[in-house]
Amino acid sequence: MRIALAQLNYHVGNFPENSSRIIAAIGKAKGQGAHLVVFSELSVCGYYPNDLLERLEFIQESLTAIEKIASCCNGIAALVGGPSFNPSPKGKMLFNSAFFLKDGAIKSIHSKTLLPTYDVFDEYRHFESNKEFNLIELNGNKIAVTICEDLWFNQKVMNAFARENLYATSPMEENCRQNPDLVVNLSASPFSYHQERLRKDILIENAVKYNVPIIYVNQVGAQTELIFDGGSFMVDQQGKVVKELAYFVEDFAIIDTLDGETNQLQPQTETSEKIYQALVLGITDYFRKSGFSKATLGLSGGIDSALTLVLAVRALGAGNVNVLLMPSQYSSDHSVNDAVALAERLGVSYETLPIHAIAAAFDETLASTFKGLPNDLTEENIQARVRGTLLMAFSNKFGNILLNTSNKSEAAVGYGTLYGDMNGGLSVLGDLYKTEVYQLSNYINREEEIIPFNTLLKPPSAELRPDQKDSDSLPDYDLLDAILYQYIDQARSVDEIIASGYDEVVVRKVVQMVNRNEYKRFQAPPTLRVSSKAFGFGRKMPIVARYPL
Amino acid sequence: MRIALAQLNYHVGNFPENSSRIIAAIGKAKGQGAHLVVFSELSVCGYYPNDLLERLEFIQESLTAIEKIASCCNGIAALVGGPSFNPSPKGKMLFNSAFFLKDGAIKSIHSKTLLPTYDVFDEYRHFESNKEFNLIELNGNKIAVTICEDLWFNQKVMNAFARENLYATSPMEENCRQNPDLVVNLSASPFSYHQERLRKDILIENAVKYNVPIIYVNQVGAQTELIFDGGSFMVDQQGKVVKELAYFVEDFAIIDTLDGETNQLQPQTETSEKIYQALVLGITDYFRKSGFSKATLGLSGGIDSALTLVLAVRALGAGNVNVLLMPSQYSSDHSVNDAVALAERLGVSYETLPIHAIAAAFDETLASTFKGLPNDLTEENIQARVRGTLLMAFSNKFGNILLNTSNKSEAAVGYGTLYGDMNGGLSVLGDLYKTEVYQLSNYINREEEIIPFNTLLKPPSAELRPDQKDSDSLPDYDLLDAILYQYIDQARSVDEIIASGYDEVVVRKVVQMVNRNEYKRFQAPPTLRVSSKAFGFGRKMPIVARYPL
Repeated sequence: MRIALAQLNYHVGNFPENSSRIIAAIGKAKGQGAHLVVFSELSVCGYYPNDLLERLEFIQESLTAIEKIASCCNGIAALVGGPSFNPSPKGKMLFNSAFFLKDGAIKSIHSKTLLPTYDVFDEYRHFESNKEFNLIELNGNKIAVTICEDLWFNQKVMNAFARENLYATSPMEENCRQNPDLVVNLSASPFSYHQERLRKDILIENAVKYNVPIIYVNQVGAQTELIFDGGSFMVDQQGKVVKELAYFVEDFAIIDTLDGETNQLQPQTETSEKIYQALVLGITDYFRKSGFSKATLGLSGGIDSALTLVLAVRALGAGNVNVLLMPSQYSSDHSVNDAVALAERLGVSYETLPIHAIAAAFDETLASTFKGLPNDLTEENIQARVRGTLLMAFSNKFGNILLNTSNKSEAAVGYGTLYGDMNGGLSVLGDLYKTEVYQLSNYINREEEIIPFNTLLKPPSAELRPDQKDSDSLPDYDLLDAILYQYIDQARSVDEIIASGYDEVVVRKVVQMVNRNEYKRFQAPPTLRVSSKAFGFGRKMPIVARYPL
Repeated sequence: MRIALAQLNYHVGNFPENSSRIIAAIGKAKGQGAHLVVFSELSVCGYYPNDLLERLEFIQESLTAIEKIASCCNGIAALVGGPSFNPSPKGKMLFNSAFFLKDGAIKSIHSKTLLPTYDVFDEYRHFESNKEFNLIELNGNKIAVTICEDLWFNQKVMNAFARENLYATSPMEENCRQNPDLVVNLSASPFSYHQERLRKDILIENAVKYNVPIIYVNQVGAQTELIFDGGSFMVDQQGKVVKELAYFVEDFAIIDTLDGETNQLQPQTETSEKIYQALVLGITDYFRKSGFSKATLGLSGGIDSALTLVLAVRALGAGNVNVLLMPSQYSSDHSVNDAVALAERLGVSYETLPIHAIAAAFDETLASTFKGLPNDLTEENIQARVRGTLLMAFSNKFGNILLNTSNKSEAAVGYGTLYGDMNGGLSVLGDLYKTEVYQLSNYINREEEIIPFNTLLKPPSAELRPDQKDSDSLPDYDLLDAILYQYIDQARSVDEIIASGYDEVVVRKVVQMVNRNEYKRFQAPPTLRVSSKAFGFGRKMPIVARYPL
């Protein structure tokens, strides 16, 4: 049997565009003699529509689109993802379904059993869990249809502590009782730099355990915070990956399932390369899908804004990025020089808007209110907010979206000014710790100096007061990031972190900073997610609470 | 049998404080001869800890607190809410449980079956659903223990379309097969202005249907956005409410369940009174629980900031509120006069910081960048951001939390400046449409002029350009709010709203404004929730999406 894998980039709610892409892929698959073409999870509406799923007109538009797609399925069958109504009057209204389309009609509906409701996933908010397992018969083959998490019954549970299984029912177990010749999986599995390996391991384990080949089709493209990396593949019943589609781009492939090994695999890429591709795709799709083309950002001469600029230029083109240099009296000459050097090297237009006159006007206006009080963080924050306001003025006037340049270490400890350098429509580096920012910058510079060496070598500084260094207020980033990674990404307790060899005073200080700054992160921009625990919807912490320590 | 109802105000994660309150109430109940004292849902840790539930040290601290409380239960039994470990190796790690404490120990654990995962509720993110129903035997009575949503099996499903039941299992049905003499319900049911009636109807329906009295103990107090209103009560098996505790304050009552009617009910209050009490409690608890006492806000002479100020003063005291007046050249004299009159009437200290010098410095700095371009929204936004920065400077210097003064109509259509008037640690009026702001202001003024009549009578204006009126950019608020209510609170489609008698062009324009401003609301402050559909965690919409229209 000949099966096509269609790995496409969907836009949430854009039924006309999504349907066109799906229908085109059906035509292509049919042209190549495929009997079946498989799309990804919720393909017709894009993953994930969130509370748009509570709007009846959204569901109706989705079902209309499915029917239109079905009418194009003659001489070929297709599996397309979309919401379907729960026929029972009990339970949630919807299923997260795969529609089996053939002979111009919907032949059957196969729904998702395991509904991830943790980290960035919220599926039980909208969907009822499936309890019926019916195979498809096509060309003499029996095919089990599963959706994403359905294959993750055996996952090592991420949220905290060793548990055997996160779910009570195993859809693979249920399906494989009926001896399928093939399992297909419609997926929308967001990228994180561990995920590709994890995903393959899980699928291989399933294929071997149940002695059945599995075809896995993933979504590609970014939806605000979440970046879907594609990399669809087939694993045979011996657990060998025999075909693999490209990462971070749309792709299409034909598999003749009964032919045995084909072994067309993607080249291995290192973590920095993956993160690089993910972030570029994240920026590209944020702009394209929201109908914007131009970006702006504040270029300080530091490493965060330098790296953000390089990524923005790769995503949008140098002609679509304008940067502002906004030096104060505390900015060093080399910062300005490094910023100019980078902008010129990249061919990006820049303007220099010194902030001292505006900051002085604030001081003047506040003089009587603040009379007799020493300068403190207030005056540093004013500088950051003047810059944030200038950037937003540029954004408002010219229609550029402001890119935020904060990193995950800063976001974690609250080392940033709300309504100042925390401004932006999208945080590009907000899921990279400072040490990872350096790693990615070195990757960018692997063949030639793109980010000025000087920017890479000088000690990090916010330059908000004379001779300020980040290390005045924070532990060195190597140490800070190691503690943050344990606390945030690994959810370890303070005691465990100390026991792993860190100084108690430092650990407590860092953890307190993290806990006290939930209010800032609550108002932070959406952040491109590249790790398995990013700030944003995947980490919901109370603002007004006493935290255990 | 004598039962005490302990309606307390908990602080999320504050195990020492929560335990002290619980232990004190146990002592009081014992002193009054009670056999059992009932607390609310997740009382030991406060509702809702969110992803703190994924941290093992949090669960351990919670269990330690439960054991300590158990050790105080001699000569009296107690039902205390808290997370418990799921003894099965399958499924989520935790149950949302009621611990039955007696003779100094945990006697049994009764867990929640129906886990609300919609609107502001996220319980399946953290908890497994209970499937075992065991009654408690105490003093010859059989008591069924349920937790909040467990009684809501028969609710009219809120999220969208008529369905019979949101859940497949009825815990009341399961429990009542064992013929309990009494059902108790540990609850954490947040206030919305429909909720009190809804809640009573549901409990009465259950009591009558199963012919059993129900004791319902609710949490009181605010946890960031969510305001819990208390109002614990008992309904007898005929469906008569025979005892009702106070609203919006801690309360305690003794019920002799077999004595028949007592009928001590709270006086009926109108909606405005409830919303007033809810918002004052919301502000009070936000400050108290985060360890702050002082607030600031910008007083414009308009109705939103006037009402916010009155509420802040009622919550925190006039001595703890400082306001800034920040007139521009477009501010009318009457605005400044109205603002001064209100501040003086309330005894609140104010300072006047004109913004024209700072705005001029921005214009000067941006002159060459914006050369030849007409003034537009950019310059209006700069004024709003100058004010936002001045307020944050005041907040930073003196440790006052900035209260946001935006209303729900503005938040809905994006009529506000991100990083400007959208600044603040807490949005007080963000769940009140403009017309509701007027209603509540008239309620404040019901006996005397507190908010200046002039503020109530003049046409709303942002005063960001000469002679500006809100009605230049927006439909009149009566019309706007009616459309917004249907679209947001009732989740009606554009077609339905038009069919209900509104102009198509206006409806489409309004709905488009709502859809296009998800990116602004993503970065808005937490908002005190008083309706059944507030902006914030209860309404998760994608930013980068095509919306159905």
